[in-house]
Amino acid sequence: MSDASLPALIEALRRLPGVGVKSASRMAFHMLQHDREGALLLAQALQQAATRVRHCAQCNTFTEAEICPTCLDPHRDRTKLCVVETPADQAAVERTAAYRGLYFVLMGKLSPLDGIGPKDIGLARLFARAGDGVVQEAILATNFTAEGEATAHVIGEALKQRGLKVTRLARGVPAGSELEYVDLGTIAHALVERREK
Amino acid sequence: MSDASLPALIEALRRLPGVGVKSASRMAFHMLQHDREGALLLAQALQQAATRVRHCAQCNTFTEAEICPTCLDPHRDRTKLCVVETPADQAAVERTAAYRGLYFVLMGKLSPLDGIGPKDIGLARLFARAGDGVVQEAILATNFTAEGEATAHVIGEALKQRGLKVTRLARGVPAGSELEYVDLGTIAHALVERREK
Repeated sequence: MSDASLPALIEALRRLPGVGVKSASRMAFHMLQHDREGALLLAQALQQAATRVRHCAQCNTFTEAEICPTCLDPHRDRTKLCVVETPADQAAVERTAAYRGLYFVLMGKLSPLDGIGPKDIGLARLFARAGDGVVQEAILATNFTAEGEATAHVIGEALKQRGLKVTRLARGVPAGSELEYVDLGTIAHALVERREK
Repeated sequence: MSDASLPALIEALRRLPGVGVKSASRMAFHMLQHDREGALLLAQALQQAATRVRHCAQCNTFTEAEICPTCLDPHRDRTKLCVVETPADQAAVERTAAYRGLYFVLMGKLSPLDGIGPKDIGLARLFARAGDGVVQEAILATNFTAEGEATAHVIGEALKQRGLKVTRLARGVPAGSELEYVDLGTIAHALVERREK
C-alpha cells in the first residue's frame, strides 16, 4: 500500500503558474473532498488541450487546426496585421469589435534580462508573414510595459525597412479615469499627443 | 473544425478553488506554451487521485487503503485521539513530532451560517470512533476561529458526556512573536493561563 496519489497531485498542481505548496494542497483537498467530478473534468481538459492545441501556421495563435478560424475568415481585412504578445491580448482587441484585420501572436516578448531574444519569439516568422505582399499596415499592440515597448520598437524598425506602414496603439488617458489618479507619464503623453476638438 | 479545447480547459481550471477567469486563462496559456509535459502530468495525477483516494475507515483522512498508514502504525498511542479539521491540519500536528497518538479528521467544521451541521461533518462517526473503549483522551485541535471553537465546544461536550477526558490545544503567545504585534485577545488569554516558572 502506498499513499502516493495525493502528494503526486499536490506536486503536479505546483506546475501551474502562481501556485505554491499551500495553494496546491488547498486545491487538492478541495477537489478530493468537494468536486471529484471537476477533477476528472479538468484531467480530461488538460489531456485534450495538451495533445490537440497547436499554433496557427499563419498567425501563431493557439488553435486545433492548421490555420485558425480568424485567419480563414473571408470577411477580414487582409491588408492589416495587428501584432500582440499573447492570445489573451488578441482576445482583448477582438472584444472591442473595433478591428476587422488579421493578427500575429508573438507568444512572448523580447526580454533581454531573461535571455529572450528575437529568435525565441519567432520574429523571423512574423517578418515572413508581414512580407506576404498583401499586408500593408502593421499595428503594434504589444503591451505598454518596458519589454512590450522594446518589442514594438524592434519590430517596428524592421517592418518599416521592409516598406510597411507601421502604427502603434494610441497612448493617453484611459476611458472613465480621473486625472488625479492617472500616472504622470500617461498625462504627459496625453498632453504631447493632444487632439483638436 | 472546432477550437473547443482551450475554452474547455479554461472553464475546467475555474473549478479549482481561488481561480477566476483571468488566472485560469493565464494558467492555460502558460501550460500550453511552456509546460505541456506538466499539463499531461497534472491530468494523470488528477485522474489517479480522483479515482483512488478515499477516506480511512478509522480516522477519515485521505488514503488509498481501507485503513491509513497512521492508524495501522503499531507504535502509536491508541489511547489518544487528536481531532482536526483537515488533512493539512493533521500534517501540521505531525510535523511537530510532539504527538504520537491517533487522529480523527473531520474534513470540515460546524458552520451554521453555511448550513453545515453535525451530520454534514460526520460527528456520529467520530463519536463511534472515540467510544471504542481504547481511546481515553480526545485532544481537540480544530482551528482557533469562531467556527473551529464552536466545533470544539460541541464535540467536547458530547465526548465528556461519554466519559472521555477532553483537552484543547493551549492558547497563548506564538513562539518567536513580539508582544507589540500580538492581538489583545491572545495576550489576555496568555495572562489568564500564565504558568509558574
